[in-house]
Amino acid sequence: MSDELTIESVQEMLLCAPYHRWLGLSVLALDENGIDIKATWREEWVVNAEKRYTHGGVLAALVDLAADWALVKRTSRGVPTLDLRVDYHAAAMPGDLIAKGRVVKAGGTISCAEAHVYNLEDRLLASGRGTYFTAKPKN
Amino acid sequence: MSDELTIESVQEMLLCAPYHRWLGLSVLALDENGIDIKATWREEWVVNAEKRYTHGGVLAALVDLAADWALVKRTSRGVPTLDLRVDYHAAAMPGDLIAKGRVVKAGGTISCAEAHVYNLEDRLLASGRGTYFTAKPKN
Amino acid sequence: MSDELTIESVQEMLLCAPYHRWLGLSVLALDENGIDIKATWREEWVVNAEKRYTHGGVLAALVDLAADWALVKRTSRGVPTLDLRVDYHAAAMPGDLIAKGRVVKAGGTISCAEAHVYNLEDRLLASGRGTYFTAKPKN
Amino acid sequence: MSDELTIESVQEMLLCAPYHRWLGLSVLALDENGIDIKATWREEWVVNAEKRYTHGGVLAALVDLAADWALVKRTSRGVPTLDLRVDYHAAAMPGDLIAKGRVVKAGGTISCAEAHVYNLEDRLLASGRGTYFTAKPKN
Repeated sequence: MSDELTIESVQEMLLCAPYHRWLGLSVLALDENGIDIKATWREEWVVNAEKRYTHGGVLAALVDLAADWALVKRTSRGVPTLDLRVDYHAAAMPGDLIAKGRVVKAGGTISCAEAHVYNLEDRLLASGRGTYFTAKPKN
Repeated sequence: MSDELTIESVQEMLLCAPYHRWLGLSVLALDENGIDIKATWREEWVVNAEKRYTHGGVLAALVDLAADWALVKRTSRGVPTLDLRVDYHAAAMPGDLIAKGRVVKAGGTISCAEAHVYNLEDRLLASGRGTYFTAKPKN
Repeated sequence: MSDELTIESVQEMLLCAPYHRWLGLSVLALDENGIDIKATWREEWVVNAEKRYTHGGVLAALVDLAADWALVKRTSRGVPTLDLRVDYHAAAMPGDLIAKGRVVKAGGTISCAEAHVYNLEDRLLASGRGTYFTAKPKN
Repeated sequence: MSDELTIESVQEMLLCAPYHRWLGLSVLALDENGIDIKATWREEWVVNAEKRYTHGGVLAALVDLAADWALVKRTSRGVPTLDLRVDYHAAAMPGDLIAKGRVVKAGGTISCAEAHVYNLEDRLLASGRGTYFTAKPKN
């Protein structure tokens, strides 16, 4: 476990990624079993120009990254996703989103984590799971 | 089957979506069982600032949209994704990507389609499947 | 919601299925959001003759049926599985198993539920999710 | 690649597993990219006593094992399943089933394979994918 990791330091790590900056991520909460991350809505998320809801690919990214970074107290970094599965529960209308990642099973080589994505009214929009490669990188 | 749908008309439908414009999509091929779509690399796709590979969320979006639009000759439109599953096979380095969607099983209410994402050297980077809600919309 | 459904009546419904009898199912707990089901180990579950652990297909069946029947207070019956996803966390050694199913999102046409499978020492062995077709059957 | 592996030797390996014997498996075809396996219907597969179709858990097992053993020319053995995803396309009525497994991506540590399950009239009933742990076992 990495005790030095804080909300601030994890957010700094996250925002090294241009894609995470594009998603406007900020870390809201962090502990050894999970992370809560806010993403900032932007016009480019929209898939349906008339009804204005967000593309499922953006929600998939939020499930993936929140599940991945739920492991960060154990991994000290973002880790490779082996596979990702997302269930879509409701249309995501314009507005910021909260993704809550939680560890399902942490393993030495392979770990499983899940995430739920909510709007600011706490409505569940999407959820899912990923399998992550958590073996220590070889130096 | 919608015989009037052409590469040009499907591309026009696709590009109504701000997210699809952000992905720089163009339709390369289209038949009743599938679609090939090219996406244009952009800096904001990058997740690892040092190694420069693309975020899995972008690949997930390409799997989703290529599988979804593989059904377009049958659905005449993009349809809601019920769930999505993506396997990551290799890091996607900077460069345009090709997503090839194919129908697995077309049904009246529920359909299943798959997609494979390649780089321009034809290397398989990610692949997966989605379940789509293909019931006719009520008017 | 079906208030008349009890542990006893659901167990009776479950055991109409030859496959469920083969799994030796008994219902331990039931409420509107979930169900706990015990399965009785049998020699035919074994995949590795030497190490004696249970085949992943049996664990997949337990995830599927516990997630499916987690919805029973809402559906009043077992419902068709559209798709199933299972993560394997640890080898299941000989012994009875407990599968705990919970509703993730109940919908009129499509519902999502999850299940966790434990051994009798409460160790998590497998978990996963299914998408279920919960539209009322046409008569 | 293991050139010594033949249909006969793989079938012998498969049938070491009590669960595989219960499924009545026989290997129909084998090459470096895949395997075709037949399973023998039995009454205990039935989930719906009235309509007589087979439980999805049995189909999930067939997807898993055909995808797993599609890798056998590379792995020389059955390998651990990390996760499994199955799409159900049509009810499986009483009768033997054919599961065709194919390699999607073979890797040193992690591999992905898929399988399609058909009835004897060649109707697609279920299909899906698994992620397999293909690292060499430590001795």
